[in-house]
Amino acid sequence: MFVGLVNGKPLASIVSAGLSKFGKREGLYARELFAEAVKEAFDRCPRLEPKRDVKAMFVGHMGEAYEHQGHMGAAAADWAGLLNVPATRTEAACASSGVALLSGVYAVLSGLADVVLVGGVEKMTHRSTAEVTEFLAMASDYPFEQWHGITFPGLYALMATAHMHTYGTTETQLAHVAVKNHYHGSLNPKAQMQKEITLEAALASRVVASPLKLYDCSLITDGASCLILTKPELARRFTDQPVHIIGAGQASDSIGLYERQSLTSLRATRLAAQKAYEMAQITPDDVDVAEVHDCFTIAEIIAYEDLAFCGAGEGGKLAETGETRLGGRLPVNTSGGLKAKGHPVGATGTAQAYEIYLQLTGQAERRQVKGARVGLTHNVGGSGATATVHIYRSEA
Amino acid sequence: MFVGLVNGKPLASIVSAGLSKFGKREGLYARELFAEAVKEAFDRCPRLEPKRDVKAMFVGHMGEAYEHQGHMGAAAADWAGLLNVPATRTEAACASSGVALLSGVYAVLSGLADVVLVGGVEKMTHRSTAEVTEFLAMASDYPFEQWHGITFPGLYALMATAHMHTYGTTETQLAHVAVKNHYHGSLNPKAQMQKEITLEAALASRVVASPLKLYDCSLITDGASCLILTKPELARRFTDQPVHIIGAGQASDSIGLYERQSLTSLRATRLAAQKAYEMAQITPDDVDVAEVHDCFTIAEIIAYEDLAFCGAGEGGKLAETGETRLGGRLPVNTSGGLKAKGHPVGATGTAQAYEIYLQLTGQAERRQVKGARVGLTHNVGGSGATATVHIYRSEA
Repeated sequence: MFVGLVNGKPLASIVSAGLSKFGKREGLYARELFAEAVKEAFDRCPRLEPKRDVKAMFVGHMGEAYEHQGHMGAAAADWAGLLNVPATRTEAACASSGVALLSGVYAVLSGLADVVLVGGVEKMTHRSTAEVTEFLAMASDYPFEQWHGITFPGLYALMATAHMHTYGTTETQLAHVAVKNHYHGSLNPKAQMQKEITLEAALASRVVASPLKLYDCSLITDGASCLILTKPELARRFTDQPVHIIGAGQASDSIGLYERQSLTSLRATRLAAQKAYEMAQITPDDVDVAEVHDCFTIAEIIAYEDLAFCGAGEGGKLAETGETRLGGRLPVNTSGGLKAKGHPVGATGTAQAYEIYLQLTGQAERRQVKGARVGLTHNVGGSGATATVHIYRSEA
Repeated sequence: MFVGLVNGKPLASIVSAGLSKFGKREGLYARELFAEAVKEAFDRCPRLEPKRDVKAMFVGHMGEAYEHQGHMGAAAADWAGLLNVPATRTEAACASSGVALLSGVYAVLSGLADVVLVGGVEKMTHRSTAEVTEFLAMASDYPFEQWHGITFPGLYALMATAHMHTYGTTETQLAHVAVKNHYHGSLNPKAQMQKEITLEAALASRVVASPLKLYDCSLITDGASCLILTKPELARRFTDQPVHIIGAGQASDSIGLYERQSLTSLRATRLAAQKAYEMAQITPDDVDVAEVHDCFTIAEIIAYEDLAFCGAGEGGKLAETGETRLGGRLPVNTSGGLKAKGHPVGATGTAQAYEIYLQLTGQAERRQVKGARVGLTHNVGGSGATATVHIYRSEA
């Protein structure tokens, strides 16, 4: 939580962004995927001279276990053609690049680094599902959770069960989230899954951790993402279409689910959202398009509530109405989300920002939200021990 | 590298600091060690109301493998009594808390977080030496180094060999670094090793990776460290003895040694130092006391040269003269350094700053450098893919 409002003025501006193709990317190292995302960002921004202009980097990367490779900041800098640029890896589980983004915002605001590259990367699919499940579990509490054998599908299943018990949320409502996000993914050429699914197929898919089924779970994905940030007053030096970051919030909570006040709401999301809305001086009604952290379908429903897109307990109904589908009142996860675009964990936070960048600059093609001016991203680490919320505004 | 000088004005001020006892700390988790360091920092600063005042945290932590525990930012925040405070783990190998410190400086300068806690932690001694060696190796290049079986003693042995070949540096000069740092450690009640060693014992110790012997290597250590930063104009609200950070530099280099321009100098250190000196508007001659990254004795000798405490190739001779010993012209590693105080890798960067904080506030007891006003810390990640340099000034 921050002190001091910034009165709706931009904190920093995005002048370019890049995203690798998401999916199974055989034969590549994480650093090579990162370079693919960076190349798009540099290509989009011909006025940038990367070696001259980029003064600092923050790279979200969740797990050194996948490639037996730590120190990803320096490795990513080198492969991105930015040898010697200060590069820091940030990690907050699946919010690793959400916190990279905020660290980059701090750096820009500090006055010490005019242009900052933030991003994230993960290479996962070369490991077995059992290995990936174990590596992901390292983001939960070792003595109080992992040691007892619970993994993330189980933790989110506990939240889903509590939500159903408290509010009457149904498996069908969860499935609606999956169907919507697969539809959006079918419109995104970089998504891992580009095919629609039916409600029936979602409901008939095999149980992973009851009540969560296969189609309630996000994907194991290779991918990378990045953004180029600068001071708002310098943005037009680099682009005619900057996207301004006008609110930012981050909060933590207990790493173990057992210590939480509630299983049906993430306090970290609520605190981060409150700060971001305050800073941006907007209300949830002002948001035109949002990318939220749908690592499981229940997580998107809880996010609707914690971001105040609806009241507590109303997330399941909101999923059913279609209002969060393209063409609805507030399209959510137009990229396909973690569910269909894919979830290369360290890359997810800035990949969400990439989608909002496309939407607010009118470059989202078949999934463009018409007239979108205000966007929001919401990135969660673990079962909610970290959350970041960022709010964006186009200039037009 | 930064643009824009800050003209010798403080970037941020340290108003308190804490350090756990270093050594073999059986039966504790990293988060508990971190809480021990934080408790000291809070106890030293009774005017701080932690839950009210601390607005962000950056926690250096190198390896999730040791405790099968990622997401250390949130875990550390909770155990430090700072539940819900935004907490980001930073990682840059053994410079993980050097980069946490700079990230905290950015946050303070951003205007969004008045008071920021930065620190680091590692719990290592419960794993076997073979495991620790493997986990540490994850900070080197997987495809080009680890895969071939080389680990850090071997990488630094290559640098030592090159330095000997190029400049005539001797094994005896390396041993002088060990003897000095063990002497300093003998004066530090928190050091892992508190006994002096002789030059003969150092030279007779068993070979680890020729020419490096046991006493050329730093220790495997459990420990944690932290600092409380604020804006210079707020410092006196919290303490009568602030220490100001007046220069900061960070740079990267190739993660693999094979790609470097030189094996006898770390370009990342040189770039980081150049920036920090420029920003602080001081020269190396102005430094009264320094903590440098002596993960191996050769690393301290190279650091002397890269920090311009002496010319290229003169580091071995400087080690011999005694000028860097307590009582000498420029005491280096008065804490005992990584060599004798210990090297809990994620904690090292801010542990170095802790020592400088004690020195510049006259609290270093038996190892006090009389009249010390300007201090410097130098933290290296891996074989030099990351380096940070910070410069500090007392107020008096």
